[in-house]
Amino acid sequence: MNALVYLGPGKKNLRDCPKPTTTNPTDAIVKITRTTICGTDLHILKGDVATCQVGRILGHEGVGVIESVGPGVATFKPGDRVLISCITACGRCDSCRKGMYSHCSTGGWILGNTIDGTQAEFVRIPYADTSLYRIPAGADEEALVMLSDILPTGFECGVLNGKVAPGSTVAIVGSGPIGLATLLTAQFYSPSEIIMIDLDDNRLEVAKSLGATAVVNSSDGAAAEQVRKLTGGRGVDTAIEAVGIPATFNLCEDIVAPGGTIANIGVHGKKVDLHLEKLWSHNVTITTRLVDTVSTPMLLKTVQSKKLDPKRLITHRFKLASILEAYDTFSKAAATKALKVIVEA
Amino acid sequence: MNALVYLGPGKKNLRDCPKPTTTNPTDAIVKITRTTICGTDLHILKGDVATCQVGRILGHEGVGVIESVGPGVATFKPGDRVLISCITACGRCDSCRKGMYSHCSTGGWILGNTIDGTQAEFVRIPYADTSLYRIPAGADEEALVMLSDILPTGFECGVLNGKVAPGSTVAIVGSGPIGLATLLTAQFYSPSEIIMIDLDDNRLEVAKSLGATAVVNSSDGAAAEQVRKLTGGRGVDTAIEAVGIPATFNLCEDIVAPGGTIANIGVHGKKVDLHLEKLWSHNVTITTRLVDTVSTPMLLKTVQSKKLDPKRLITHRFKLASILEAYDTFSKAAATKALKVIVEA
Amino acid sequence: MNALVYLGPGKKNLRDCPKPTTTNPTDAIVKITRTTICGTDLHILKGDVATCQVGRILGHEGVGVIESVGPGVATFKPGDRVLISCITACGRCDSCRKGMYSHCSTGGWILGNTIDGTQAEFVRIPYADTSLYRIPAGADEEALVMLSDILPTGFECGVLNGKVAPGSTVAIVGSGPIGLATLLTAQFYSPSEIIMIDLDDNRLEVAKSLGATAVVNSSDGAAAEQVRKLTGGRGVDTAIEAVGIPATFNLCEDIVAPGGTIANIGVHGKKVDLHLEKLWSHNVTITTRLVDTVSTPMLLKTVQSKKLDPKRLITHRFKLASILEAYDTFSKAAATKALKVIVEA
Amino acid sequence: MNALVYLGPGKKNLRDCPKPTTTNPTDAIVKITRTTICGTDLHILKGDVATCQVGRILGHEGVGVIESVGPGVATFKPGDRVLISCITACGRCDSCRKGMYSHCSTGGWILGNTIDGTQAEFVRIPYADTSLYRIPAGADEEALVMLSDILPTGFECGVLNGKVAPGSTVAIVGSGPIGLATLLTAQFYSPSEIIMIDLDDNRLEVAKSLGATAVVNSSDGAAAEQVRKLTGGRGVDTAIEAVGIPATFNLCEDIVAPGGTIANIGVHGKKVDLHLEKLWSHNVTITTRLVDTVSTPMLLKTVQSKKLDPKRLITHRFKLASILEAYDTFSKAAATKALKVIVEA
Repeated sequence: MNALVYLGPGKKNLRDCPKPTTTNPTDAIVKITRTTICGTDLHILKGDVATCQVGRILGHEGVGVIESVGPGVATFKPGDRVLISCITACGRCDSCRKGMYSHCSTGGWILGNTIDGTQAEFVRIPYADTSLYRIPAGADEEALVMLSDILPTGFECGVLNGKVAPGSTVAIVGSGPIGLATLLTAQFYSPSEIIMIDLDDNRLEVAKSLGATAVVNSSDGAAAEQVRKLTGGRGVDTAIEAVGIPATFNLCEDIVAPGGTIANIGVHGKKVDLHLEKLWSHNVTITTRLVDTVSTPMLLKTVQSKKLDPKRLITHRFKLASILEAYDTFSKAAATKALKVIVEA
Repeated sequence: MNALVYLGPGKKNLRDCPKPTTTNPTDAIVKITRTTICGTDLHILKGDVATCQVGRILGHEGVGVIESVGPGVATFKPGDRVLISCITACGRCDSCRKGMYSHCSTGGWILGNTIDGTQAEFVRIPYADTSLYRIPAGADEEALVMLSDILPTGFECGVLNGKVAPGSTVAIVGSGPIGLATLLTAQFYSPSEIIMIDLDDNRLEVAKSLGATAVVNSSDGAAAEQVRKLTGGRGVDTAIEAVGIPATFNLCEDIVAPGGTIANIGVHGKKVDLHLEKLWSHNVTITTRLVDTVSTPMLLKTVQSKKLDPKRLITHRFKLASILEAYDTFSKAAATKALKVIVEA
Repeated sequence: MNALVYLGPGKKNLRDCPKPTTTNPTDAIVKITRTTICGTDLHILKGDVATCQVGRILGHEGVGVIESVGPGVATFKPGDRVLISCITACGRCDSCRKGMYSHCSTGGWILGNTIDGTQAEFVRIPYADTSLYRIPAGADEEALVMLSDILPTGFECGVLNGKVAPGSTVAIVGSGPIGLATLLTAQFYSPSEIIMIDLDDNRLEVAKSLGATAVVNSSDGAAAEQVRKLTGGRGVDTAIEAVGIPATFNLCEDIVAPGGTIANIGVHGKKVDLHLEKLWSHNVTITTRLVDTVSTPMLLKTVQSKKLDPKRLITHRFKLASILEAYDTFSKAAATKALKVIVEA
Repeated sequence: MNALVYLGPGKKNLRDCPKPTTTNPTDAIVKITRTTICGTDLHILKGDVATCQVGRILGHEGVGVIESVGPGVATFKPGDRVLISCITACGRCDSCRKGMYSHCSTGGWILGNTIDGTQAEFVRIPYADTSLYRIPAGADEEALVMLSDILPTGFECGVLNGKVAPGSTVAIVGSGPIGLATLLTAQFYSPSEIIMIDLDDNRLEVAKSLGATAVVNSSDGAAAEQVRKLTGGRGVDTAIEAVGIPATFNLCEDIVAPGGTIANIGVHGKKVDLHLEKLWSHNVTITTRLVDTVSTPMLLKTVQSKKLDPKRLITHRFKLASILEAYDTFSKAAATKALKVIVEA
């Protein structure tokens, strides 16, 4: 079958690979119909993800059809249409029993990382009963690809951890796909203000169209000041970090109001300065989280009931045969205005 | 009246000062019967607290008797025995309405800081109705001095923010008075393990006698390793920082388990390194808090019902006339083995 | 001044009454600009509210302008435009400190009940600092009359207690003003389904226009069956009782799903049957609540940011001189299609 | 093998039955070492549990040793010592994913009810990975039999649902095994007062020895009055119903303070009167729950760390061959002073 294979830092190619088979009784083989590319895939290609070895099929998002199941799979049968979670959960270990699937002792984020992933014609999904979700009849499958990772990530790591609430004031630092997914799901809780902050005016325009009440271009270094102005000097109840570098985390420290929360989503490669000499008395909460995808069933319901339209994040579409072009478009987002790209298998 | 006056960095003295009077309708004048000295008073004396000016009467803890009340005070009358909260709360502003008294727009920590404090024969307490607590008949007033600051601080900033729970594993970094107050109140929630960490073996011995299930002397730099050993490699559910320096905060980062919480109590003078390059995916929560003293009524109940014995933190007793000696004893804790010192006025 | 006075069961009239004065230092006198009539006023007029005595000026909702304040009022001054809360809160007692203002030891629901109320040219408001809310510049005061009682009641007793959540399924039994206020504020949390149930097709039509996803006319006695049909046999996550009679509470018991919540808003005059022989094992929660109006500041923000448009509940407008006509219109709602009627003073 | 078989209302006997075998891949066969008898077993024998048919082996509590496992069991292997949960959880369905194992779509309370149970030499446990718990080395297995049902039931349905908290006031109506298990686990949260109420002075004596701060014999019909006296007229923050009849539930309604919680544990056969004409404005919460056993891992930790000593509930011990005598002793508790009886297989 065709698959996109990681070949070491800076290198990848579409190759012919053996079709996967069920190796454990709880495995399912899924025929991919649509997948997408994540910022994390670009991290891997930079060589930043040590756990991902040369030869790995990339990708941890997608929808498809059950091709076959092992004898231990109870919930699905061949022909079922399914959403693939980016997080694999055994459902049995201490972490899974607490709903912290991201730290499943034999799962977590393994797809397209320590086992072969979804940018292929077929993929093997371990613990299928607890790592796949049935797609409701009549659902728009393309929209649901956004539920593999980006929407639960924005929602769980940003909105839930950030305690976004009716009437509250929110700033989201970073208006890329993940920041925008956070913006969409923050609106579940009717905050009064959602201020989007980014360096790219195009992305800020998109943010406005998706519900931001104010936007701030931070390229002049005065973002904190502008946020204070927008909030009557008070700062925000919730500051969400959706980039992953020290400068954006520090901005969150600057703009969070006493009693507020900084919810980190970004994947960080370096330590940051935590200004406890100021914050020790500010009654703030700082959270980190690798998405658990515990909210996937709820998100499916909000898509079905039209409270959420994830398709608005999709800007480009490609065939699997053109996935290298898809990568190119996705990685040059400033020029291509790409948010999420759909790859049809 | 006699009062302990701050005279600039390194300088203080017992002086004759005018007896305070009610300047606002919601004020009460309290005749102090017992007060104590806080680590924060030592910070002021080092010149570290810019808001506290020369000439200020120090002290923010104590019990006493109502001497007089302004016309706007509804709850208390002369002769009532009261506990003084270290936090002054108007009860009306947005912060107070949310229970965040520490950020009261006209109160907060002002006693012995921006207005005269309790290390004196009399003190003026603004917003008396919401900043004083009636002492139940028959209560041991000496024990209740611990409820002005140290016990709500340990409980709110450490135990509540740290989400200590039945069966959970807790480490408290710092076994001084505030760490020990945290140890006492952590036991309200029956955690399985409470590991106390300090450099001073005497304080660790005290910790054992107050309920620590394990103690670690961190002077060899191997505390993190020992905590991991004590927790089967997992780390702790709750790491409480009760010192206020980068090294102890970093230790908390090293020992907190995925899904766990770091609750900061310490007063920090410098920024710390936050290792988001590791913690971004660990689903941790970090909290800071200036005590709100919202738990004071509850703590009074636990003292009355013998669930809590705050007197165990008292090591020395002095008269107000000897308060300089009390300061000396308290500030040389390693030598004197002082925890909390009572000053009788 | 003119005021609507309760004259015993079935009797009321507009009378000339003495203008109130501040009797306590924390009182304010408010010149009423707009008030409204509540279902509870009709209860009083039926003689159902024993605490309300003959001669009482009715009314517990309204907006106005501060006329004068006692010496203990810190937050307001003459000329300030204010929203009057239906609940009077001292801000000092145990209940108020816990945010349960409805059970304030010297306040609670007293306006137009045990002290004179708002259906008058002027009203005395005790504990003005904690029982009035400043109206933001530029706000639509008419809309804000809905925030005195009906919106916090629907939100606190129905939506918050009912744990309405993104993706959840809600049924609201009763589509009168309070049920519709619940419908409006339930949408703060983006539930997937909100099913409104009533006997009156007109009110169900209004419900549809205000965001109900389905409506059920319960006059055929088959409402439970219809709700089960609408929810795939499962029942609802949240059933909100907004009527106050045994039949509607029993309907809630019939339609709540395992793990769900019944939030009672209705004022009940009789006991109801609780079917524990069925529900003991269904993991349900049942709540009751007299509104605390702790959410008023938040609701003000949602109105200001256009997340909530309370004006949609207003159907009629009268002058104070015509308040008897206003009562007539409000009490014959089936014929007049009245929801809330504004009375301008 | 020997097993206690239900033979219809009022009838049971020890019979020779076929040893069970794994019928599904996720099954385990457990050799029972110790089991016990539950009040629910007596309900079945009265013919009150329609789902339990003639011929069923009774029992849903016990500890034992894994005899064999199906190919889908990942966590256990023959020889492992395990605690059997009274609730069978697939770990995959919507209810299980929410931690509501009691409503598992293919599990829940089935042991000794719709499938053969634990009062036998061997038992088949479906979904072994998520329905059994490994017994820590060195644990006292007899004590752990109490963790199959009675302790999680008291803790989850009574203590957690009842929001028992430090300094709070608790009444437990019913001082039988389940009420006493609630008493033991309520102490995890250090309430100030725990008032036990029962008709049997012996059980009240036991309650005192297990930590009750006050006891009330309700046989004179004045229990509510006594509780009000003990609480300064206020009532209790948490009233826990641990009997299952209308009179005891009504007592809970009488004694719960405004803002408080009634947590129902009892298995009810009849509806009860809910006095909403009084309670509608009292801000109370009423909960019901079939135990989910989600707290079993936590309870194991508290037993290991000596925070909980479940053995104090064991009064008698029998061999499986004498199980009829064990039933006789357990069912005549008033005379035999039996609490929990251990049956060794």
